[in-house]
Parts: sequence; C-alpha cells; structure tokens
Amino acid sequence: MNFIEKIENSWKQSNSLLQIGLDPNPKNFPYELKDKKNSILEFCIEIVKATAQYACSFKPQIAYFSALRAEEQLEELCSYIKDKYPLLPIILDAKRGDIGATAEQYAIEAFERYNADAVTINPFLGLDSILPYMEWKDRGIIILCKTSNPSGSDLQFLELKNGMMLYEYIAEIVSKKWNTNDQFGLVVGATYPRELSIVRKIVGERMPILIPGIGFQGGDIENTVLSGINKINKGIMINSSRSILYSSKHDNWREAATESAKSLNNLINSFLNHEHSTI
Amino acid sequence: MNFIEKIENSWKQSNSLLQIGLDPNPKNFPYELKDKKNSILEFCIEIVKATAQYACSFKPQIAYFSALRAEEQLEELCSYIKDKYPLLPIILDAKRGDIGATAEQYAIEAFERYNADAVTINPFLGLDSILPYMEWKDRGIIILCKTSNPSGSDLQFLELKNGMMLYEYIAEIVSKKWNTNDQFGLVVGATYPRELSIVRKIVGERMPILIPGIGFQGGDIENTVLSGINKINKGIMINSSRSILYSSKHDNWREAATESAKSLNNLINSFLNHEHSTI
Repeated sequence: MNFIEKIENSWKQSNSLLQIGLDPNPKNFPYELKDKKNSILEFCIEIVKATAQYACSFKPQIAYFSALRAEEQLEELCSYIKDKYPLLPIILDAKRGDIGATAEQYAIEAFERYNADAVTINPFLGLDSILPYMEWKDRGIIILCKTSNPSGSDLQFLELKNGMMLYEYIAEIVSKKWNTNDQFGLVVGATYPRELSIVRKIVGERMPILIPGIGFQGGDIENTVLSGINKINKGIMINSSRSILYSSKHDNWREAATESAKSLNNLINSFLNHEHSTI
Repeated sequence: MNFIEKIENSWKQSNSLLQIGLDPNPKNFPYELKDKKNSILEFCIEIVKATAQYACSFKPQIAYFSALRAEEQLEELCSYIKDKYPLLPIILDAKRGDIGATAEQYAIEAFERYNADAVTINPFLGLDSILPYMEWKDRGIIILCKTSNPSGSDLQFLELKNGMMLYEYIAEIVSKKWNTNDQFGLVVGATYPRELSIVRKIVGERMPILIPGIGFQGGDIENTVLSGINKINKGIMINSSRSILYSSKHDNWREAATESAKSLNNLINSFLNHEHSTI
C-alpha cells in the first residue's frame, strides 16, 4: 500500500478527516508531567491513545522535538504509532527543502530514521530537490502550497506574468508535472478557504490536502470542509494541534483530549454532504 | 558583536572569503575512520583544524547529522569551533521555514542548542515566519534567494507581473523591508554568476552573500568572485564542502584537506581587485 492508498483507507475506516498534530510544548503540559523524564514521549503517547479513534492520521512536528534534544523520543513515538495504530499514517511535519545530495539525507531522516509515511516539503528549490524523496515510492510528499500564516502571502500571493498566483502555479506543477508516481499531496491553510477551493479544482479529486490553521489560527471549519473535500467527502486532513493537546492541564487531561477530538471530528463530519457520503 | 560584524571581522583577520562546508558523509570518510565510534565528530574536528587558517567561516549541514542520529556530535562540533576558533562564525545550514510558533522552536534549535552565529532560512512562508529568529538580535539570518541547483529555477526564475523575477523580488524585500536590524544575508549559487551580480546590486555593499555551488556543482570561481564581492573585496562566503573534505581517503587526508583549502583560498584571492583591497 502506498501513502495515498493508506490515507484513503484510513479515511474510510476511521470515518474521520481529523489529523492530530503532535506539537509537544512542555510549557503547556499537564501538571502531572512537569519535570518528568521523557515527558514529551509520555505526553504524545497518551494523546495518541486518547485521540486515535477519532483521527485519520498523526502529524508530529519535528521542531518541537529538535529544540529540546528529543529526537529519540520522536523515534519511539513514531514506532509506537506504527505498532499500535498501523492503519493511521504518520505525516512528519519537517518542511525540508534542500539540494539533491542534502535532500537524500533528509529523506533518510524522515523515511528511515522516523519511518514516516509522508513528509512535508517546501517547494522553493524545485523538482530536483524533491527527487530523492520520490525514490521512496511507497511514501508521501506533501508540498507547501498556501500556508496558514498571514505572511505566507508575501510570496505565495505574488501574481506571475502568466496571470496565476504563485500558490496556484505550485498546485499546477505539483499535480500536472511532479506527481508522476501518485505520491504527492499539498498543504493549504484553513485560513484561506477561497484558495483551498481553487487548489482542489486545480489538483482534481485524488490528491490529499493537509489543512492546518483551524483552532488557534482561526480558520473556519465549515468553510474549510466545503472548500476542500472531493466528491466522495474525502481528500482532506484537517489538522488540529493545540486545541486538542492542551484541552486540560488537570488530571482529566486524557479525557479532555478525547472529548476535544471527538467533538471536532463530529463537527467536521456534520458539514459533509450526506448525499455523497455513501460512495 | 552581531553576526554581520563578526563575519566582517573574520574576512579582515583571515584574509579569506572561503567557507568550509561540513557535510560529513561516512561513505567518503578516510579509511582510518571506518566504523570508528563518533567518527562524524572526529572527522569534522580534524577538518576544522586542518582548514581553519584558510577559512572565513564554517557551515555544518544539519541533514548529514540528522540522517545518522548524530545531533550530539553536531552539538560538540559547534562547541569545539566556538571554543577553539571564536573569530570564525558558524553558519548552521538548516534551511528551515515554518509558521511563527514552530519557527520559535527552530530558532531555539539553531541558536541555543547549537549556538550557531547564523542559520539559513527558506523565505517561502514570509516575514512572520522569520520574526522569531530576529528576536536573537546578535545572530544572522541567511535567506535562500537563488539556489545553486538547476531546478532552483523552477520557482526562483518565475517572472512576476511587476517584471521582476522571484529571486530578485526576494533580494529586494529582504534588503529593503525585512532587514530592519542588520541581521540578514542571502544565499546565491555560484552556478548563477549573472544573478549573483544582480543580487549584489540590489542589496548594496554590506549584506553578506553565501555562495554554494563551486567545485562539484561546477560554478566558475573567477566569475563568482567578480560578481559577488563588494567594493572592498569582501561581502561573500564562497562555500566548498566535498572538494575539500574528501581530498584524500589515505593517511594524508588532513594534509590533503589543508592543501585543498589553501589553494582554493589562494585562487579566490587571486581574482580580487587589488586596487581596492587595502581599504
């Protein structure tokens, strides 16, 4: 099963379009984990257990581990998810982008060391910077297209001479030129629902879109769902991190995370077009 | 001393525009280091010792360490350089690019964990993705502008509606808008000398330009020097990695690296305009 098949299977089995973002920041940890050894790993594993039944995938953000010298905990986390929830893909959020010889190393980091099913990648260095990841034929490559942050527009909204905006051009080349082996997805922020629907039109039905930016960043969920889904009510991973992970600092933090994931998943599903949902 | 002052001081003291890129790939290591524990650290330290007198700075490429679970060796390497060669700046080549909350973590990784003097950053996510690095006022931020790889042109050579190419626009906003605290530099590949001279005109005299792409990638040294230097024969860090690091696999590998660095530094300096070099 390649990555696209794995996420499609997960959408079907899980009845969820919700992706849990694993951004472990000890400042926000429950009181009981304060100053505990390997608290990052313990926190993430408990969140995974608490939310897995309402999730289509997990997205660990590597920066939170790297800042704290916690790469080994990330390795253990990924292998825990693989072992206990083999149907749920791991998308390593690393946003790497480098020339070929270096990209080979980053591909080893993502796909061998962490054994991720997919990795997020920055398109700024062009196709030859992506080729090393494409050698891993069963893995996914999720390219930044229109990011959720306001300044993402500094470059991504630049109008090109051919009339397209840069983010549209990226959606176009990724879907029409780069995606020769059915491996690619795109990142489009929930804070840009209009652009999300434009990207969905450009890339067609099959390409997964990873959508950060709901919750703390303010993206509207109904708009996001309706702009992003394909005709069979699938095709998107709506990421939520902080608003699920840090639902409570008290002893009920696991249950609070479960409740947050459950209600967000229900909310997302309530906006689906049920005429089509049985396909 | 902030980063810009530190590199200016180093250019003056070292009489060198050569930057040693530390891309440790064990496949290419000298025979005597095969299968040795911590060989990555040992190799890099020996290369630093062998080349420091001909270098203006060091650029460790983090991907080579991450692929091999060698982050601790990178920490030790950076602290070794800081300790023994405090005048030579460390530019951590990480090419990070992420939204603010995540960029805060990457800034901690680069500036606290590895204590780098500067870090390379991808501009695709815009100004708010750079602000967390700018909080570290004494450190440098080197933004990708025109990368050395052929496919870099996929996006960087796109023509904008306003008539500029994307890489020119990046040089423009970095130098005219983002650089409010004298912290920024740019990356321009030696494989694009014409664009290098255009970028130098846009950014003016003071901004450092990091130039990868000579040696294995084929950039012409004379063209690179003449296109990139400012009026006082400074302003550039010409990076060389593989052609210095892997000069020999035999017992003479340290001396071979010294010889390679020395002759490359001499070659670079031979193209300087000596009318101006005494300023």
